[in-house]
Amino acid sequence: MQKEASVREELFEKLKAVVGEENISRDEAVLRVYSYDVSPYKGQPEIVVRPSNASEISEIVKLANEYRIPVVPRGAGSGAAGGAVPVSGGIVVELTRMNRILEIDIKNLQVVVEPGVVHANLNRELAKYGFFFPVDPGSSEMATIGGLISNGGSGMRSVKYGVTRDYVMELEVVLPSGKIVTMGSKAPKSASGYDLVRLFVGAEGTLGIVTKARLKILPLPKSRALVLSAFDDLEKAGKAVVNTFSAGLVPSGIEILDRTAIEAVKKYNPEIDIPLVEALLLFEVDGTPRGVKEEVETIKEVCEKSGAVKIDVATSKERFDQLWSARAMVGAATTALNPDCVRVYEAEDVTVPISNVPRMLLKIREIGEKYGMNIVTFGHIGSGNLHPALVINVLDESEWDKLWKISEEIQTSAIELGGTTTGEHGVGIARAKYMEREHGEALEVMRTIKRALDPNNIMNPGKMAL
Amino acid sequence: MQKEASVREELFEKLKAVVGEENISRDEAVLRVYSYDVSPYKGQPEIVVRPSNASEISEIVKLANEYRIPVVPRGAGSGAAGGAVPVSGGIVVELTRMNRILEIDIKNLQVVVEPGVVHANLNRELAKYGFFFPVDPGSSEMATIGGLISNGGSGMRSVKYGVTRDYVMELEVVLPSGKIVTMGSKAPKSASGYDLVRLFVGAEGTLGIVTKARLKILPLPKSRALVLSAFDDLEKAGKAVVNTFSAGLVPSGIEILDRTAIEAVKKYNPEIDIPLVEALLLFEVDGTPRGVKEEVETIKEVCEKSGAVKIDVATSKERFDQLWSARAMVGAATTALNPDCVRVYEAEDVTVPISNVPRMLLKIREIGEKYGMNIVTFGHIGSGNLHPALVINVLDESEWDKLWKISEEIQTSAIELGGTTTGEHGVGIARAKYMEREHGEALEVMRTIKRALDPNNIMNPGKMAL
Repeated sequence: MQKEASVREELFEKLKAVVGEENISRDEAVLRVYSYDVSPYKGQPEIVVRPSNASEISEIVKLANEYRIPVVPRGAGSGAAGGAVPVSGGIVVELTRMNRILEIDIKNLQVVVEPGVVHANLNRELAKYGFFFPVDPGSSEMATIGGLISNGGSGMRSVKYGVTRDYVMELEVVLPSGKIVTMGSKAPKSASGYDLVRLFVGAEGTLGIVTKARLKILPLPKSRALVLSAFDDLEKAGKAVVNTFSAGLVPSGIEILDRTAIEAVKKYNPEIDIPLVEALLLFEVDGTPRGVKEEVETIKEVCEKSGAVKIDVATSKERFDQLWSARAMVGAATTALNPDCVRVYEAEDVTVPISNVPRMLLKIREIGEKYGMNIVTFGHIGSGNLHPALVINVLDESEWDKLWKISEEIQTSAIELGGTTTGEHGVGIARAKYMEREHGEALEVMRTIKRALDPNNIMNPGKMAL
Repeated sequence: MQKEASVREELFEKLKAVVGEENISRDEAVLRVYSYDVSPYKGQPEIVVRPSNASEISEIVKLANEYRIPVVPRGAGSGAAGGAVPVSGGIVVELTRMNRILEIDIKNLQVVVEPGVVHANLNRELAKYGFFFPVDPGSSEMATIGGLISNGGSGMRSVKYGVTRDYVMELEVVLPSGKIVTMGSKAPKSASGYDLVRLFVGAEGTLGIVTKARLKILPLPKSRALVLSAFDDLEKAGKAVVNTFSAGLVPSGIEILDRTAIEAVKKYNPEIDIPLVEALLLFEVDGTPRGVKEEVETIKEVCEKSGAVKIDVATSKERFDQLWSARAMVGAATTALNPDCVRVYEAEDVTVPISNVPRMLLKIREIGEKYGMNIVTFGHIGSGNLHPALVINVLDESEWDKLWKISEEIQTSAIELGGTTTGEHGVGIARAKYMEREHGEALEVMRTIKRALDPNNIMNPGKMAL
């Protein structure tokens, strides 16, 4: 015990020499700040360091290897699966000081950023040039690019624009050995070698720490429009989505609010003018002005044929913003229906094949009724991704019990409907127990890779069932 | 030696029991057929088997492990890098019998296919539903989906539609152990676990054999148009491409024919009406009819501002087809300028950042002049991918010497210009010697993964410098 303490002291001094006194802490109050994210999972680190470059991170990882102590990379801590929670203790490596946009190369449609750049800041900077990084997480104002990459994030516009992995061209990574390696290519496409970039995207820091990323960017669309369609039946709304694709359209996004979500929004902000129906679909289309007009017409036709009871096209900027804000406020509004309750992020990221979305929506409602919980459901229906919001009185032990059961039932249903427990938030601790069910024997392939690249299991251990 | 022969006999008998007498051969004439692809590399297998399902392949791979003999998967043999050439002998596993489209799921925008399905056949089938698999290799009528996946193929429309990896949702793979594993998800997006699918896309059969693939499909665009722009200067053509993106457009494809390519086409088919200039750009746009019209106008404006000397919009189907056929015939036309010569696929897939395409084009011309070879260059300029065609008298030894030097200089230039030796054809044998230069220490990460998943190195050994 005595020896252990002196060894830890030695490690602390060595780490301090690497990052400097002002960028290291083992203060109890500070450690507590780094012991959680948005999820209900907790775990306290022993030391927090805030490095400023890849060489420092390399030194940190080498020390961690020498002292056999876990290393947990962390961005803004806005993750919803416990991915950055140090469940096995160890060193938290906070990357928010590495927040520079290093290069904006418009000619080649790419940017180079450090991992701590906040998503919204990148897009604000790019907008000056008429460009954007199309991945659009709801947590844009908090989430860092490094977090997005490590969790395989996406968002509303993934229907047309895809997910983070589609935009990562090159990564600089500190491997579990401490070696700094660059993978990928500056060329728009490459068929050379294993696609290591995509192996590290979504690896949640279990294979190394991303220290730099070259991202593909796109020109901002000239025009955008929103179509709001109201349905008196969930099934019909689901079919309208399928019919939209069959009509040859790929909207930038298709969002859904079910009745509980609409009620929540209306309660949260009575001034928002949206109809109270079984399901609302929000279609966003973008492109050239005339192209957008044409797509809006087609979507209206498709929705009419699919049985929409009301269709509303947002032509003014005001109405456009109002409708988007209705969608954006659902998260916050989830507690409006249950004033004494708090939203717990569990089962919040289920994703199923598009044709099964109506069934998944009904299933969630059914589970809510069974346990007597008003589950507010909304999400990216165009990519099969739903965000049910479970709200409980967190001070009541029996409510937690109910929550875990509901979470289990919702996530199991998603898998049974051919889907996954996570479309964009990652596995972390929250979804680890579903890895075997989702991946079967492929999980062993993941474990083999993990063992080969991180033989001492120092990189973010205890995550993803690896 | 005697023992070796009897052991091989034993293996042959066991393999025969797996695939049936009519699907195995060690006939010298047959083996010769399987000893090459489109590249100049050769290597003869000892046995060829033609399995019909994943269980048979699993048995074959298990036997290969037991007998420590290489296994080389092969589709149509239309590869250009020697990827399917059995350089270390062993068993060629030909997958063309597994050519069924197993499921067309329009509602979920996906299809399930066996690896031996020919690319063009899949798209002919999907066209009946108004859908398509957007990846479009030039070898569409030959190439199999399994080959496309294993080589990370793409084609002309990757500018807008991306590459093969963007369309693979799920893979069934026989691992080097013989285990049959399914990876990926049926859901439109998933953030669960390591992205094994993308690790196997482009792995060229070195990590296992793809036996089934679930692919994303898209609705066929309602409308397409072509804009042909002529430039009296390569640099200006390159800038027109950059300016197109900066103007907010993402055409489905942008192709280039330099002067030598135009000359070749005109010699090959004098009836094709295209201007003889320094560079021709072919822009293809697709979308809704009005959207397409609008984009055509913008491209015309951009090209005018960029200094185009002639702009021609293909409005009639006839002219559209004629222009595309001009592009399509370049490959065949490359020998028109050099009647005694044959095209050798070497340095044929270089890819650089878009802003460096003009420099790469000039470099290729310079190298051609230095060695006295008429190098015809064309390709997917919109994604930085050029296909220089090296043509020599293959019976003349000294010409081969020249070819290797030219190949080396072109590929080295591509790497120096921030690019890769292969944008879509793969590494195989041809590009193995550049792996270290392209990937540096990341190559060791690839080798670690290879060793971990294929400890006996039976899966397509001798490829990709692994």
